[in-house]
Amino acid sequence: MPQPLPPVSVLGLGMMGSALAAALLKAGHPVTVWNRSAAKTGPLVAQGATPAETVTDAVAASPLVIVCFTTNDNVTDALATVDLTGRTLVNLTNGTPAQARALAGWAEKQGSAYVDGGIMAVPQMIATPAAYILYSGDEQAYETHRPTLAALARTRWVGTDPGRAALYDLALLTGMYGMIMGVAQAYALIRTENIPATDFAEPLHAWLSAMLNGVVPGMAEAVDSGQHLTDVSSLGINQAAFANFIDTHDDQGVSPELFVPFQKLLDRSVAEGHAADGLSRLVELLKK
Amino acid sequence: MPQPLPPVSVLGLGMMGSALAAALLKAGHPVTVWNRSAAKTGPLVAQGATPAETVTDAVAASPLVIVCFTTNDNVTDALATVDLTGRTLVNLTNGTPAQARALAGWAEKQGSAYVDGGIMAVPQMIATPAAYILYSGDEQAYETHRPTLAALARTRWVGTDPGRAALYDLALLTGMYGMIMGVAQAYALIRTENIPATDFAEPLHAWLSAMLNGVVPGMAEAVDSGQHLTDVSSLGINQAAFANFIDTHDDQGVSPELFVPFQKLLDRSVAEGHAADGLSRLVELLKK
Repeated sequence: MPQPLPPVSVLGLGMMGSALAAALLKAGHPVTVWNRSAAKTGPLVAQGATPAETVTDAVAASPLVIVCFTTNDNVTDALATVDLTGRTLVNLTNGTPAQARALAGWAEKQGSAYVDGGIMAVPQMIATPAAYILYSGDEQAYETHRPTLAALARTRWVGTDPGRAALYDLALLTGMYGMIMGVAQAYALIRTENIPATDFAEPLHAWLSAMLNGVVPGMAEAVDSGQHLTDVSSLGINQAAFANFIDTHDDQGVSPELFVPFQKLLDRSVAEGHAADGLSRLVELLKK
Repeated sequence: MPQPLPPVSVLGLGMMGSALAAALLKAGHPVTVWNRSAAKTGPLVAQGATPAETVTDAVAASPLVIVCFTTNDNVTDALATVDLTGRTLVNLTNGTPAQARALAGWAEKQGSAYVDGGIMAVPQMIATPAAYILYSGDEQAYETHRPTLAALARTRWVGTDPGRAALYDLALLTGMYGMIMGVAQAYALIRTENIPATDFAEPLHAWLSAMLNGVVPGMAEAVDSGQHLTDVSSLGINQAAFANFIDTHDDQGVSPELFVPFQKLLDRSVAEGHAADGLSRLVELLKK
């Protein structure tokens, strides 16, 4: 007979929490679910989950408690009076590094191991190969429950600082929002001349992939070494070209609003004497 | 005996023009060079180029004339009194779509075929596999000279509208600047906690590559079809999360300045009733 899979409790059944619980059920785990408004347990119970009447019952049902609320305040609110002794709390609620560190300290006082996670996926991607979750915090607890967590998404351990997963999550989203600004603006430009955006998608993808391959490792090395001088694409060259770049967007009928602060930052970099440095210098200039 | 390669004239010997001339010499073409200040011809003459005393001599020396000046005004200034009959002008000067179209009309009046090009490379990348050049304009002239142009970089034809190469060039740079904003800001965040940027480079690269694969074709299809509704990541969800996103940058000690206009655009998208649409809707909102 195959070994039965360990039980898991899932607290918080919004779109994401429901997707997590469904993935665990599908993988064959006994799953206990709880939500502040009990109505949301229905679809999961239909899939085989056990509804807990109280959050205390839910926590008592499994050594591994996965939490996915709207905010981290909900975590301490919901668990304020619950005995967490001997549990592992895996908190997948969106939050900041500081919140994750505070919760880790709080959980320790409640007798629980604490692992924080950052989900790099939308609910529809859970349990598909494209999804992964960043984890940080109590490494032993993480290793114990890793086979279970792997049912949700690929796992990526980023360190024992409980705030690390939230920091990585935030920084990855930051990179993505920059990319989205660039892609949206590029399509807006192309569309001013009624060229199908789909005609431009392949060259844009090829170009940005090539740039990613160069810029992501190259900028990291420059930042770590503090060696920002370049003979390739200096801040001075970029700054000199940028006014024309902005004007051309305007002339084409596209608002350059998303790129104006970048122009100001380039201007500042040159004014502060960094004209010969590469774009990696901007990382330093963004520090307050 | 192998067929001798066709002669080429290169006008404008800044860093890029010099790299182009050097690549043609290396490929075995007879190359005539001209620059407004003759001193810049020296290194290329040492590599085998023939210096032209006047721009008229340079144009007379080859049916294919490659031009790479600082601005497009320099092109008409330099060639104002030169007979271009029967030549093909390949203009690789940085410029706007409107400038390229004006130059194509002017060149036609001078008796020359006109091809405009956008170089997707820095000078150091010329004649390496990473470089390519977008071309548009006179397709027959382009096809005739394509084997020669291939010595500079991979060639990519984008259409008979002479402004098309400049438009694609600009849109690709736009995408790149967005990506750079995101990557620089992501590293700035990571560095607030003294994590080496090189530790974060691999997860950042993996994440942005995955996002590129989804966002670039996905947004193009939505833009072309005008179907912006999404059940994955709506403007409403992003807008609701963004204030917290900006605050966390602030709290971590990083200026959120590069992302403030994006926040305003998200706010506007929701205020104008697009909360249920995906990020592709922003392409429409950027049109003036």
